[in-house]
Formats: sequence, C-alpha cells, structure tokens
Amino acid sequence: MTPPATPPRSLTAIVLAAGKGTRMRSDLPKVLHRIAGRTMLGHVLAAVQAAGAGRIAVVAEPGREDVAAEIAREAPGAQVFPQAERLGTAHAVLAARAVLEAPDDDVVIAFGDTPLISAETFLRLRAPLADGAAVAVLAFESPNPTGYGRVLTEGSRVLAIREEKDASQEERAVTLCNAGLMALSGQHALTLLGRIGNENAAGEYYLPDAVALAVAEGLSVTVVPVDEAEAQGVNDRVQLAIAEAAIQARLRRSAMLGGATLVAPETVFLSHDTILGRDVVVEPHVVFGPGVRVADGCTVRAFAHLTDTVLEARVRIGPFVRLRGHAVLETGAELGNFVELKNAHMGPGAKAAHLTYLGDAEIGAKANIGAGTITCNYDGVLKHRTNIGAGAFIGSNSALVAPVTVGEGAYVASGSVITDDVPADAMAVARGRQAVKPGWAKLKRAALLAEKALRGGR
Amino acid sequence: MTPPATPPRSLTAIVLAAGKGTRMRSDLPKVLHRIAGRTMLGHVLAAVQAAGAGRIAVVAEPGREDVAAEIAREAPGAQVFPQAERLGTAHAVLAARAVLEAPDDDVVIAFGDTPLISAETFLRLRAPLADGAAVAVLAFESPNPTGYGRVLTEGSRVLAIREEKDASQEERAVTLCNAGLMALSGQHALTLLGRIGNENAAGEYYLPDAVALAVAEGLSVTVVPVDEAEAQGVNDRVQLAIAEAAIQARLRRSAMLGGATLVAPETVFLSHDTILGRDVVVEPHVVFGPGVRVADGCTVRAFAHLTDTVLEARVRIGPFVRLRGHAVLETGAELGNFVELKNAHMGPGAKAAHLTYLGDAEIGAKANIGAGTITCNYDGVLKHRTNIGAGAFIGSNSALVAPVTVGEGAYVASGSVITDDVPADAMAVARGRQAVKPGWAKLKRAALLAEKALRGGR
Amino acid sequence: MTPPATPPRSLTAIVLAAGKGTRMRSDLPKVLHRIAGRTMLGHVLAAVQAAGAGRIAVVAEPGREDVAAEIAREAPGAQVFPQAERLGTAHAVLAARAVLEAPDDDVVIAFGDTPLISAETFLRLRAPLADGAAVAVLAFESPNPTGYGRVLTEGSRVLAIREEKDASQEERAVTLCNAGLMALSGQHALTLLGRIGNENAAGEYYLPDAVALAVAEGLSVTVVPVDEAEAQGVNDRVQLAIAEAAIQARLRRSAMLGGATLVAPETVFLSHDTILGRDVVVEPHVVFGPGVRVADGCTVRAFAHLTDTVLEARVRIGPFVRLRGHAVLETGAELGNFVELKNAHMGPGAKAAHLTYLGDAEIGAKANIGAGTITCNYDGVLKHRTNIGAGAFIGSNSALVAPVTVGEGAYVASGSVITDDVPADAMAVARGRQAVKPGWAKLKRAALLAEKALRGGR
Repeated sequence: MTPPATPPRSLTAIVLAAGKGTRMRSDLPKVLHRIAGRTMLGHVLAAVQAAGAGRIAVVAEPGREDVAAEIAREAPGAQVFPQAERLGTAHAVLAARAVLEAPDDDVVIAFGDTPLISAETFLRLRAPLADGAAVAVLAFESPNPTGYGRVLTEGSRVLAIREEKDASQEERAVTLCNAGLMALSGQHALTLLGRIGNENAAGEYYLPDAVALAVAEGLSVTVVPVDEAEAQGVNDRVQLAIAEAAIQARLRRSAMLGGATLVAPETVFLSHDTILGRDVVVEPHVVFGPGVRVADGCTVRAFAHLTDTVLEARVRIGPFVRLRGHAVLETGAELGNFVELKNAHMGPGAKAAHLTYLGDAEIGAKANIGAGTITCNYDGVLKHRTNIGAGAFIGSNSALVAPVTVGEGAYVASGSVITDDVPADAMAVARGRQAVKPGWAKLKRAALLAEKALRGGR
Repeated sequence: MTPPATPPRSLTAIVLAAGKGTRMRSDLPKVLHRIAGRTMLGHVLAAVQAAGAGRIAVVAEPGREDVAAEIAREAPGAQVFPQAERLGTAHAVLAARAVLEAPDDDVVIAFGDTPLISAETFLRLRAPLADGAAVAVLAFESPNPTGYGRVLTEGSRVLAIREEKDASQEERAVTLCNAGLMALSGQHALTLLGRIGNENAAGEYYLPDAVALAVAEGLSVTVVPVDEAEAQGVNDRVQLAIAEAAIQARLRRSAMLGGATLVAPETVFLSHDTILGRDVVVEPHVVFGPGVRVADGCTVRAFAHLTDTVLEARVRIGPFVRLRGHAVLETGAELGNFVELKNAHMGPGAKAAHLTYLGDAEIGAKANIGAGTITCNYDGVLKHRTNIGAGAFIGSNSALVAPVTVGEGAYVASGSVITDDVPADAMAVARGRQAVKPGWAKLKRAALLAEKALRGGR
Repeated sequence: MTPPATPPRSLTAIVLAAGKGTRMRSDLPKVLHRIAGRTMLGHVLAAVQAAGAGRIAVVAEPGREDVAAEIAREAPGAQVFPQAERLGTAHAVLAARAVLEAPDDDVVIAFGDTPLISAETFLRLRAPLADGAAVAVLAFESPNPTGYGRVLTEGSRVLAIREEKDASQEERAVTLCNAGLMALSGQHALTLLGRIGNENAAGEYYLPDAVALAVAEGLSVTVVPVDEAEAQGVNDRVQLAIAEAAIQARLRRSAMLGGATLVAPETVFLSHDTILGRDVVVEPHVVFGPGVRVADGCTVRAFAHLTDTVLEARVRIGPFVRLRGHAVLETGAELGNFVELKNAHMGPGAKAAHLTYLGDAEIGAKANIGAGTITCNYDGVLKHRTNIGAGAFIGSNSALVAPVTVGEGAYVASGSVITDDVPADAMAVARGRQAVKPGWAKLKRAALLAEKALRGGR
C-alpha cells in the first residue's frame, strides 16, 4: 500500500461532496457513509492526497458540520466551499472557483461518492496533462453502456462525450463510457469551465461539456481507461455494500500476498488501515475495526472483533474475543474465549483464557488471569485502574475492585472480591466459608416440585 | 414487502405437499424444512394468500400431524386432504376434488417444495384467466433444458407441453421449460383434470396433460414467464441451501433499499419477518431469527444472534450478544459483549456492557448492570423474576437470586450475592471480607512445583 | 468419502515436497500450510494412500524435521529422500531413485502443493498403465492456456508435451494443458527418467521430457483429463485461500447430500475429517476444527467453534460455544451461549446454558450447571478434575475449586466458592451474608459526582 511516486507537477483536487443522496434513505450525508471503517469522502481525500494533491477544495452542502469535521480529519488544510444552488456538476466545480484563479499545474475533479478510484488511477488521469493535454477524461468499457455518456475517440484522443439522449444509433453502440472524473490543465481549467453553458432541457451546467469546448479550441483531450467496477458510484445501500466488497477484496488480497493466511478471506473484514504481519493466521469470521496492527506470527482465531489494538509478535487470541480502546498485547501473550480487553495492556506471555473482562488494566508479564475474572473499573461515575504484577495468579471468578493493585507473584484465591491492594508474593482470599447441609437438596427438590404442582405445573 | 393488490376474482389455491423427499435424507417431511426461519410450506401458503387465495387446499401425506399443525399456523382455515396413493400430480390435485366441485373463479396449483415463487408471480399466473384463458402455465427459459418438459408456444399461446422422452429433435431444442405450476379457470378445472388419463409407461396421472386436453377442446392456454431461479424446486439439502440463499438475497436487498446498512450483506441472515428501520447499521456476521424488529438508528454490531426481540430507536448492541424469548430494549439502551437477554425488558438508556445474563428480568431506565452480573432465575424447578429499579447500579460479578427486587437508585457492591430485596437508594453488600497471607504465594508456588516434579512433570 | 476400490496392481507414489514456496512469504515450508485442518502434504499423502499406494517416497528439503514429522503422522512408513540440489522436477524424482530400482507395477508422481487432486483422480491416472501404457499424463482444458505446457494428442494418445516457449503458433492454440502429475509403469520408470537430459536454457531436468522419450521408444503414452480447478497448485496465500474454498465446497456438499442442513454453507467451515449425521442442523457461522463427530439430530447454533469433540444424538449447542480438548456430550445434552468445554464429559440430558467454563470435568446425567459457573481447574502449576454427580444443581455464578466432587443430587447455592466435596443430596453454600446500608447509594453518588467535578469532569 505504498503510495505511488508523486510527479513534480503541482496538483489541486476539487472534490464534489454535496450530493443529497436521497436513495440512501439516511439522515447522514451520503459521503459520510463508511466503507472499510472510513467514510467515502475519507477514501477520496486519501486517494487524491496520495496522488500528490497539495491543495484540496471540497464542495459541500452548506452548514454540514459533520462533513466539515470529516474533511478536517482526513485532509487538514483542505478548503471547504459551500454549494448553495444545485445547477449541475460544472456549476458545483465553480463553487471552488477561488482555487482555480491561481491554478496549480494540474487539476483533478473527483466525486465524494465514487470511493473506489485509487491513487494510482488519479496519477494515470493526471499523466496526459504532463504530456500537453488540456483535459483528460476517465472512461470505462461497459457491456451495458445504456444510460452512460459515450466517449467518442480516435485512438486515445477524445472527440466528444455524447449523452445517451443526444447519441445517434451508431454512437449508442459505443461501449466506452464517461466515468465523470476529469483532469484539466491548470492553465485552461477556469476558462473551459467558465464557458460551459446551461442551454439544455434541465437548465444545468454539465462538466462533460468542457470536452467539446476544449476540442473546439483545438486543445488536446485524452482518454484514460479505468475498470468499470472501480468507476462505480454509490447511490444507495446496495451499491454501498458492493463498494465495501470491492475494497475488502483489495485489502484481503494485499494482506494475503504480504504473507498473512486468511483461511476464509470472504469472512474476514479489514479496515483501511489494518496491518497484518507475516505468518499471521486469521481464522474465519473476524472483524478488524480501525486502528489494528498485528505483528508477525500471531494467530487470530475465529469470531474476533478488534478495534484500536496492537498485537505484538506471536500473540494468540480467540476464538470469541473483543479488543478495543487501545488494547496492547505484548509478545507471546494469549487470550482465550469470551474475553474482552478495553484500554488494557498485557505484558509478554501474560494469559487470560476464559470469560474475562479486563478494562483500564495493566497486566504484568506472565501473569495468569483465571476464568471469569472481572476488573470492576467503574463505580457508576468514574473509571479506575487495576494493576496486576508480573507473574501474579488471579484465581477464577474473582472481582478486582479498582483502583487496586495486585503485586508481583501474588495469588488471589478463586471467587475473591479484592478491594484492597495485595502485596507482592502474598495470597489474598475474600470469599465466604463453605457450609454444608446434608440432605437439604433432597428436601428442597421435594418442596419445589410440590410448589410447581400447586402452581399448575407452570 | 406490501402484498400486491388482489383482483376481484375469487381464488382457490391447491398446494401439493405430500412429496416423500427421500433425497433430503430426513425424518422431517420435506415441506417442513425451513428457509429464512419459515417452513417451505409456510412460504408457499403465505404467497398464495398474498395473491388472493380465499380458499386453500393442501394435499398432504396422511397422518402427518406436524404438517397439519404447520398448515393451521400458516393458513388457518385451510383444508387438508390426505393423498393416500401416489399416482401422479394430477391424481394428487384430485385428492382435493371437493374444492373444485364448487369452484372459485380461479384455481392455482402450487407445490410445497417450490418455495421461491412470489405472490407477484402467482398474481401474474392468474391474470390470463381474467382475460378468458382456461389454463395458464408457468414456464422459464433455461440454457440447459434437458430433462424438463418443453412448452411449445405460438406467441403467448401454448400449443403443448412435451415431455423430454416424447420430444422430437426439433422440440428438444426448445428452451422454454414447464415450471409445473398452473392456473385453471374454476369453470373448467374439474372437467380438465378429471379427464387426464394414465396411459403411459409409469401408469401415472400427469398434471401437464391438462394442457393437451384444453387445447383439444379449443380452450385458450397461455404461458406466463418466470425466472428460472424462482421456479427451482428443492429436492435435497444442496438445493435447500440454494433456495435459502435466494430468499436471503431478496430480504437483504429489500432491507438495504429501505435504509439499513448491511456492511457485509452476504454474512447477515434475516428471517422472513425481520424488520430493520432506517439508518440501522448491521455489522458483519449477524443472525436474525424470527420475530425481530429493529427501530431507526440502531446499531447491531458483529456476532449477534437475535430471536423474538424488539429494539427501540438508537439502541446499540454487541458485538457478541444473544437476545431471545421476548427481549425488549427501549430507546437508547445498550448491550456490550457476551451478554444474553431472555424474556427481559430494559428501560430507556439502561446498560449492560459485559459478560451478563439477564433472564426473566425487568431493568429500569438508566440502570447500569456491571460486568459479570447474573440473574439466578431458576431454582432447579421454577423460574423467578428479577426487578431492578431505574438508576440502580449493580456492581460487577454480582448474582441476583430471584425472586428479588433492587430498588430505584440502589447500589449493589461488586461480587455480591443478593438474596433479599434491596430498598431504593440503599447499598447492599454480600461477599466475604478480604484476608491476606503475606509470602504465602511464594511458598505455594514452590510446593506446587515440587508436586509437579513428583508427578513427573505432567 | 469411502475410498475408491484399490486395483490389484502394486503402486509406489513419489511425492515432490521440497519446493521453497518463496511467494508464500512464510517461515513454514509451503507444503505444511493447512487446508481444512490438514496440511497440503497431508492431503496429498491421504489421496495417494486411498489410491492404493503401498509404498510412498517423499522428496523433501533436507533437514526439515517438521516436514518429516508430518510425513510420519500422515503416512507412517513413508520414506523421506532429501533433495540436496534443485535441478528440475525429473532430478527431484530421481532423489527417490532407490524406490524405482525395485519397482512396483505402477508409479505415480504427485506434488505436495497440488492438494486438490483426489484419490479418484489418482486412480484414473493409474488406469492406463493396467492397459499397457508406459506413461499417463494428467491434463486439463483451459480457456487461458498461456504459460502452460500444451499436451499434443491424437485421441487419448499423447504425441508430445510442448512448453510454451517451444510451441508453434498452431500448438499455442491447443488448450489442453499439462497438469504436471504423471503415472509411469514401474517397468519403464527408471529407464525413462534416467535418460532425461538438461540440454536447455535453464540447465534443468524436466519431468515432462519423459513423454518424448517414451514416444521415441514407441511406448504408449495416454492422456487423462482432470478439471482445471482440481489441478491448480498453491504458490501464494491467495491460491491457498482458493484451494481452501474448493475443498470446503466439496466437504459441504458431501455433508448436505448426506442429510445435514447447512443453512448457509458458505459460512460453515469443516475439517477434512468432520462427520455430520443425518438431520443435523448447522446454523450460519460455524467452524469445525479437526476431530469432530456430530451424531444424528443434533443442532449446532450459530457462532460455534468445535475441535476434538463428540456430540451424541440430539445434542443442542450454542449459539456462541467453544468445545475442545476432547469434549463429549452424551445424548440430549445441551449447551447455551458463551459456554466453553475443554476435556469435559457431560452425561445424557445435562445442561449448561450460559457463561460457563467446564474444564477437566465430569458432569453426570441431567445435572444442571447454572449461569456463570466456572471450574477452577488450574492452580497455576497443575490441572485438577471436577466431578459433578447426576442430577446435581450448581447455582449460578459458582466457582468449583478442583479437585472437588459434588455428589449426585447435591445443590450448590448461587455465588458459592466450593472448595470441599459436597455429599450426595446435600446443599452447600459458600458466600457472604447480605448486609444493607439504607440511603448509602444516594450519598455515594453525591460524593462520586463531587469527586468527578473536582477532577474536571474526566
């Protein structure tokens, strides 16, 4: 996932992100829907940055603070331009007119809802500009081109983009379709865009009209091919799921070729930033949320849910684990089933094998946390920390009431509720003493069965 | 999933459900195998009812009480006719002769093992009858028609149905195949079916022969197209899985277009009656059993298993939760990981974040249930209820021995076993006091290691 | 999965397993990567044994003890021959020259990294030898043959194998490709292989050259067809995942046709040795590790992870269970959610419904294990056993400190820590007594909120 090398020419990216997204049927703006743990807008901003965009202008719906915040997070320094009226794509681009007035060498126009376009594709789209083209148009071959604008070409030279409704029978047979994305030479961008008119049925300013204007000027317009799948936009949640699947396929393939075994890749969900080391084995049915790094030789068994987590070398976890809130496991640590870590750090070789919650906790090297151990880190108002020393042994079904410290090598008896610190190498026990009532169970059963009979067998 | 509008003509549906299903290799009758949480027979009965069937006759294997019970559940009022002998499909239909003697306007003949036929398809199949057809035949185009009866047509008019073995070379090239389902005008149904003979190698009465008889009478027979996938029958468990996948694809698509995000739809399994609201987000790997309603804005994290559950608005659950037995979470309630609810009700904003079992319980608004809390609702014979008041705080690793009430705003100390009611705003503690034996752990370890050495390191 | 009948002729299999597997990017030898719970080498060794190989020679990288150990496990008695130099496939085969000097009737040459070749295919590959062929060559039709050696034939008679680079335009149009596997008559094997030269650009000894030599001798060479998918080798982890998917598809199909319902087969992962009985229902998202047998009528609910486990008839488990380390459930036993069994045996009708760990335990018939029960089987050094008698009732949230015995019909009160044996029919309680401090919670909340305010709301 190393970003492609950046050409020496300067680049402005204009990202159109103001679409209403009605078919998403959502209160959330379309571009903030997520794919692989990152918003669609975030994917686009990351790609244009990796393609060398030093300046980014995002055209957004006015007043959407959530969109502005996402832009600030994913592309600090990007300028946001409100699109007050919806008068077509060319009109939308000109909402960012300010960045075109003092142009970079290259300008690319991207869409917040075509999240699959890679940095490499943006680089390919820019490339003709360095060779003198005024405009470069991204286009894909489609077996079913109906509805798309057709790209009419002679070799790699674009003659025109013809909308379906304006196309002749012959032109409709063309299968090369306009993907919508475009690169323009900075020198010509504002002139071309500024001349686009709205003399059409809808009264809208269409970005593809820039091609006809450039051709009419005798400027060079070049087509750049892209795979149809990569060019797909997201307009509803079925398409969102398709885009998610496409990005997952990329991420999984990259992880596998890098040396991680995904036993059943189609059941493993990665985030855009997941890092899996060499000889990592991931069993089926695992979900990686954002912020996970897994070092060499780790095993992640089935049914794991990890977010904001670091696993150092040869850690083994699962099945059925949930790690989050900055969980860190050092080399050789192990977690078994039904174990949760939240904001917890386990030292090398530490183990927690069953039915355990470790929250706001520091676990020393080779400590053994028994089945059913729970850190009581919350008193109803505040969170407190638990410290467990290296080599300590926490007996099963114990509760550690934070803030509390169990010293190195200390031993907590099974079933204890530990409220006070336990010194190193000491043993602590905090539980009731066992009493036995002979024959009681027999009598109790008889009584309960009688009661059940009285209640009518319910 | 609104049912298509019902035409004003009356309709009888005859459902053939007596097949042995040998290839299922099952003790369960074939039509009782389930798809999306509903039996195949249930799917067929629901579809014909949605297509307007006021009268339903099911032809079933004699003496199967489980089939009769399922019919009563899915189509109350349906009549069940035993099929004593197996002498072909036409013979099977005539087991329900009684309903044809006082016929409705339309009759459709459906099969209990073709569960994918939608109500809309049944409506399309009926439609030609209103236009004067005596028979309408459902048929699909197949690239591999071998083995199917071919439908010989002139436009939409059916000339004949030709079985593979009787077909000429030319007829075998026909790719339009008989799906088996048929609609007949009530006026002609009994006459046509009654005339079908068994002069063939197997000595069976074949339903498709009705077509030849109708044509010979000069009656109009119309073909109605259907997608091949929708027409597929289920004869073994591989085909059952294919049918399940087809229905899941429909249900998922409908949920997504309605405004729910399924991050990985192929890993989410819905029931026929699952309702997902707008802006619901469902992470990968979730199973919805029957009876689940999820209101707007809820989040269902990965690895959830829900049956008979209501989630009100903006509830967040999972990962790793199991809800069942009439679980209800009110607005804004939250469940974390390894939490089970059974017959439990949580008020608005109530939380249970980790490793908890709440069974037969009433949890008040904003109550906080600590990690590892368990309602002890069963005494070996009877089930009892636990009541937890609004704003109460249950410390981690507590056991609540039902019947028991924890009052509003009360506080249960971590690790307590609560056997008696706790008044509102009171604190209850029921656990042992902590004792510490300095240096004990060091000695114990030495002793254990010595014992291990004695046992030969086992 | 019954092995095909073995022909009366004797067979030696030579398995080439010395490949470096650089593209796997792994510290593990390629042939030890696993598919369906078995190494690739294990799959190949199993297939050649099922095809009748009485003698097996594995050519392996020198000094790999892990490979040698795997061979000893999967094919006891197989001989291992080190391949010191890498001078081509024919040279590799001749590392096992010793087995060819006293030849069996038939010799097959297999590859440790083509794990999908079935025993049936090996039998088909041998078959021409019985009919007098000197060599039989496995070949597949491919729509994209580029890069493969082409098999030039006249009917089933092989004329030559032509490498891509040596092929004429016409020969490149041939779509029949050499799969690499070969059978040779024992009588001719050593002679043919011994004559293969290395007069080529790479200076390597190529196994396919045996064909030209045989043809030149006037010996009969026969082609045996195989499906392209079955012939695929594994060179990186993407291909490993494809091979896994292919074997899973086989295993799932076989289980379904045998009478098990896999609701969503694509989410169920089987091991090579998984046995599922008739009328077993497996919900989505289940992982079967090696050593699992599930008897008739069992239900395995979603999110189960099973290894080394036996479920007798009509057992119901899950969702969210993990069984391992020789877990045995007798007829009608039940496990609910978040339950782990390790080296535990449950008698008929015993139940453990929620949040339980049973390790090194013997549970009697119809015993009821309450929610949150934990067997404390480890003292930090040694493991100990827990015995629970038939009909015993273990109250919720109890800890059983092993070694310990709870007698038949005994009753353990909720929340107890049981350290001493409980006699039959007795009741044991070991927990603190409940104390209540009225009004305390109200004061505590006020104090905590004040503290929170002091800390600045953190």
